Amino acid sequence: MFIIGEKINTVNPRVLRAVEERDAPFISDLAQVQARAGAEIIDVNVGSHPSAEPGNMRWAVERIQEIVDLPLAVDSPNPQAVRAGLEACHNKEQAWANSVTLEKARLEGLLPGVAEYGCTVVGLCMDERGLPPTPAGRLEVAKRLADEVERRRIAPDKLYLDALVEPISVESKAALVSLETLRAIRSALPEIKTVICLSGISFGLPARRLLNRVFLPLLLQAGVDAIFMDPLDRRLMAALRASQALLGHDAHGLKYIAAYRSKQLE
Amino acid sequence: MFIIGEKINTVNPRVLRAVEERDAPFISDLAQVQARAGAEIIDVNVGSHPSAEPGNMRWAVERIQEIVDLPLAVDSPNPQAVRAGLEACHNKEQAWANSVTLEKARLEGLLPGVAEYGCTVVGLCMDERGLPPTPAGRLEVAKRLADEVERRRIAPDKLYLDALVEPISVESKAALVSLETLRAIRSALPEIKTVICLSGISFGLPARRLLNRVFLPLLLQAGVDAIFMDPLDRRLMAALRASQALLGHDAHGLKYIAAYRSKQLE
Repeated sequence: MFIIGEKINTVNPRVLRAVEERDAPFISDLAQVQARAGAEIIDVNVGSHPSAEPGNMRWAVERIQEIVDLPLAVDSPNPQAVRAGLEACHNKEQAWANSVTLEKARLEGLLPGVAEYGCTVVGLCMDERGLPPTPAGRLEVAKRLADEVERRRIAPDKLYLDALVEPISVESKAALVSLETLRAIRSALPEIKTVICLSGISFGLPARRLLNRVFLPLLLQAGVDAIFMDPLDRRLMAALRASQALLGHDAHGLKYIAAYRSKQLE
Repeated sequence: MFIIGEKINTVNPRVLRAVEERDAPFISDLAQVQARAGAEIIDVNVGSHPSAEPGNMRWAVERIQEIVDLPLAVDSPNPQAVRAGLEACHNKEQAWANSVTLEKARLEGLLPGVAEYGCTVVGLCMDERGLPPTPAGRLEVAKRLADEVERRRIAPDKLYLDALVEPISVESKAALVSLETLRAIRSALPEIKTVICLSGISFGLPARRLLNRVFLPLLLQAGVDAIFMDPLDRRLMAALRASQALLGHDAHGLKYIAAYRSKQLE
């Protein structure tokens, strides 16, 4: 399971300011601390004014690469911004294009670049009408996204399908729907990978981090292949170690014991 | 899901001393604090010398009932001690007899009393040879226990089958085996209830409470009907509230918000 560090996101006003002011040390540091904390991919979401986004993305990707040697997930609903970020990536095959949906503009705008660069692409299980409420509806979109990718001769394991989460404050069964969607995709499309954005589940509720870390073992058990999460949340990372020990990914808990000894479980 | 408070257990030297010295306030208080923290059933495990156990059990049940108006789980491998505890219970129909296995002495020693009193009985999924290592093996024992109960005209929903947990420090797949056993029992024996002892999973590892609270949402998702756990572990109880919100048992997270406001999630 890959940890995608989610902290570089202009939804955070401090990050937005750093992007607008071209504060390179701030952005590079935020990449570096995530890498040190265990992130394996760094998400880069630097939207501000739409016209500025391709330039923001190119700038951020260049700055982060000077400091951190990890794959980057170039994250925007705007295909031009994703394309600009991918062009700036040194190692395009390792990069992630985040994201496509079944909307024609996003498919046509992004998949040719994905095919050309051999990068990974995130597909959101939503279409022109939005997010299907049921696992069956999301699986239907997933299959169509898999077809679009196959049609362009992109390898199936380069597609990560985002099962999507709604907040449980809005839809009480939202976690169950996401978990069932993950299982349905794995069963129906075994060559395709899955991804989820953890913290969406807790939006609108207090004590959000508690909900996020309790959702984590359920996602791991459902077999998710990558998670957008906050690697700087120490208790979340401790819950990840515990989940891996419980789910049989850590023989006799030896990694868990090592994490305890290096004070990562406090 | 029922919370069975596990704190009155002579495996804890302080509890053993209180039982041997007939320290009624200590035992009553330990029942009361568990009830206030959310326990719905109080487990009473007061083994010391085998010959003393029936007397210990009678004494403890009498003292606890003077203070706490909750069902008691009379817990001993010794049928005479369980019988002595049941005899002392005011409300025998609400009591739990904990536990039988397929061993003849335990079946014959306990089930006639269970049938007579109409109480609940915990059945451990183990036979004379011990604990089957696979879910299929445990389900086989579960079916035989269900047959034994049915043969004595005990209602099926009075049987709680303990899927049992081994420590992951010993068997890396132990949590997965227990979860799969719970699912197998629910599927094959839908009238029968299930129970688990949470903290067995973490025996032999450091930071045990972290493992216990990460195991909790997995057990709830597997549909377990009752859990032996420590209701005084505030972070475990907070994880329980979060699990219930995530698993659709708490519409719009309203109970979670209430727990947050009453500072139960800290």
